[in-house]
Amino acid sequence: MIQTDNILETVKKASIAKAKLFSLSEEKKDEALMLISQGIERNKEKIFEENKKDLENAKKMLESGEITKATYDRLKLDENKMRDMIKGIHDVIRLEDPSNKVLWAKELDEGLILKKVTCPIGLIGIIFEARPDVLIQITSLAIKSGNAVILKGGKETNNTNKIFFEVVQEALSEVEGFPKEAVNLVFSHQDINELLKLDEYIDLIIPRGSNKLVNYIKENTKIPVLGHASGICHIFVNKDADIKMAKNVIYDAKTQYPSACNSVETVLVHKNFEKTEELKEFLTSNGIKVIENPERFDIEYSDKILTLKPIESLEAAIDHINKYGSHHTDCIITENKKEAEEFLSKVDSAGVYHNVSTRFADGFRYGFGAEVGISTNKTLARGPVGLDGLCAYKYKLYGHGEIVDDYSKGKKQFHHKFIQQ
Amino acid sequence: MIQTDNILETVKKASIAKAKLFSLSEEKKDEALMLISQGIERNKEKIFEENKKDLENAKKMLESGEITKATYDRLKLDENKMRDMIKGIHDVIRLEDPSNKVLWAKELDEGLILKKVTCPIGLIGIIFEARPDVLIQITSLAIKSGNAVILKGGKETNNTNKIFFEVVQEALSEVEGFPKEAVNLVFSHQDINELLKLDEYIDLIIPRGSNKLVNYIKENTKIPVLGHASGICHIFVNKDADIKMAKNVIYDAKTQYPSACNSVETVLVHKNFEKTEELKEFLTSNGIKVIENPERFDIEYSDKILTLKPIESLEAAIDHINKYGSHHTDCIITENKKEAEEFLSKVDSAGVYHNVSTRFADGFRYGFGAEVGISTNKTLARGPVGLDGLCAYKYKLYGHGEIVDDYSKGKKQFHHKFIQQ
Repeated sequence: MIQTDNILETVKKASIAKAKLFSLSEEKKDEALMLISQGIERNKEKIFEENKKDLENAKKMLESGEITKATYDRLKLDENKMRDMIKGIHDVIRLEDPSNKVLWAKELDEGLILKKVTCPIGLIGIIFEARPDVLIQITSLAIKSGNAVILKGGKETNNTNKIFFEVVQEALSEVEGFPKEAVNLVFSHQDINELLKLDEYIDLIIPRGSNKLVNYIKENTKIPVLGHASGICHIFVNKDADIKMAKNVIYDAKTQYPSACNSVETVLVHKNFEKTEELKEFLTSNGIKVIENPERFDIEYSDKILTLKPIESLEAAIDHINKYGSHHTDCIITENKKEAEEFLSKVDSAGVYHNVSTRFADGFRYGFGAEVGISTNKTLARGPVGLDGLCAYKYKLYGHGEIVDDYSKGKKQFHHKFIQQ
Repeated sequence: MIQTDNILETVKKASIAKAKLFSLSEEKKDEALMLISQGIERNKEKIFEENKKDLENAKKMLESGEITKATYDRLKLDENKMRDMIKGIHDVIRLEDPSNKVLWAKELDEGLILKKVTCPIGLIGIIFEARPDVLIQITSLAIKSGNAVILKGGKETNNTNKIFFEVVQEALSEVEGFPKEAVNLVFSHQDINELLKLDEYIDLIIPRGSNKLVNYIKENTKIPVLGHASGICHIFVNKDADIKMAKNVIYDAKTQYPSACNSVETVLVHKNFEKTEELKEFLTSNGIKVIENPERFDIEYSDKILTLKPIESLEAAIDHINKYGSHHTDCIITENKKEAEEFLSKVDSAGVYHNVSTRFADGFRYGFGAEVGISTNKTLARGPVGLDGLCAYKYKLYGHGEIVDDYSKGKKQFHHKFIQQ
């Protein structure tokens, strides 16, 4: 449902409707996704028209400096983006449903069977900016994994979001037993702050947008947030590093996409590495600005700039990274396997790499088939998060009237045997 | 270190020291645990003396009504509790180290190996009340899993906590390479509130105490909290339920330990169940107070009292539980397997049971060997949490200088093959 005034009611209804999604079969969920992709195809011209309205408004915002050119470009849908979006839905259909998998089964006693089973997380709030294709991408992932969603898009793409959402709702209403109230779009001005307060109902927030947006959300909610506010990634060049490898890896990690969260910001060089000058010269002559005395170590440059700092030892490098890093992705370049393992154990980050560019931190490169986001949270899914990151687990216990009193009085004993499910 | 004035400094040091714990071998960690158990044995008399001081102070608090008799009883250490505590440490030594396990390994391309590996969560804050044995129990679990800890005990057991902590620190200083700064006790008045603010350093809070304490902590921190504020567990008696089983299971779930979080508070009875009166009579005549018109449905009675409510249908029961429950443990009593499965899928709780007492929700009964706590949080460990609930995971990527540019330009291709590690 599209709801503008009463978020709480929308969220409460979604919170009840989610139970029906939990038990929907994979076939039904795939049917819904297929109908959504066909709906987009069928309504393409209408979608372009609505997108044009957004672009006209955005043009004014661009002229007044309210949004940047890069943001303006991200708003625009074209044939290519539309094709990618439809292909994306088909990719999600082909992925395996991550819910309802038995992780293990155990016989606690004869006839008393405990199963640890994956299940949808529940109700997820998605807050996104600029790119209207995010609505379709995340909705597909949520439906496939059986999660209810509250979608909140940026005002820059209000018209495009609305038409996409109508297409989605029309598709869902064609699937028998699909709880339409489990998929929602909200878009009034106060909605973000309202949503962030509803920790009683919303299980997870996924922000998709600028670091500023993510930071704002993290600061203003008690709901777990799947994401990362910044990406301060490090490469530590050990004393025995191969200079050619160091050059290649650092160059790739900085220049392949400088504004990506997994690009390198700080290069720590062991003080006994003999080719520091050669490395510096290489980077500088290849268009990278090397800063040796930065004001702060926790800056995400998002540009062809990096901090280079000589460091005492492997241990000092680890301490520096744990202190100033963002626990995203950090790499050691060394020929010493023992020291590499020490680095990989002690660095407290989602991704810890040996002799590889930090740019590999990505759900598609990891082979997950889809990426929900990259998380620097440790008590949630961590690192690049695939479809299974939208699942939790529950314990199912099957019995025949067993009571605890029999076990506490010693009449019966547990034997705790793992079994094939 | 024992620190009374500057919590921030203590936490910062622990946050650096934790890296050393991450890479400590299981042998070293077990050695530390063994020395702790021997230290307790050796210092038994001193510990009893310090505990006596606490008991004397507590007696005044009991007389002035500041603490209850139940709390007073929990403060007291005796030979039995001491023996259990030492046995508890030996049990933890025998458990498998949950960290550094390869969950899977995948070849992204020839020579480029990605491993998903379990690792300690990092720095955990433990806030406990009354029972001083919790300090030893949780410290053992934290050390075994490689996590740094900040312990904050209740003021009622200040002296006992202090002597236990001294014993722990003495033991740790005998283990070569053990970072003593990773295990800390703090106990000034302001400490809880200070701790709760340090989400930059502390990865997880585990509260051990009253619902009031847990609620207070959940309301006042952005750090993930592993625990449950309340346990509103339900049993739904379906229309076809076996009356004998319903009686047995409900009686056990209510009376076996009425103040436990996993005891039942609300019994929902299908309106077409024919033996509701017989069930009511059985419960009442067995000392259970049955309330049919409660003021609220989200009350944890913690006593031999329960709400009994007739309900329209299976679906209405599921909605009621998802709305008023605490997502802890809920049960259906039925002979209908299909409806049981529907209930187990749709009820959004950590434990969903078929024909079994809710009292089974417990780490030891599940065969985990230890219980860190019971979590109703879905994006953390959920349900009874064993030692592996103190672990997160990280991605380790091993290469030979691979760069992303080669893959994005099509010079190389990923093949994403799972491999034996």
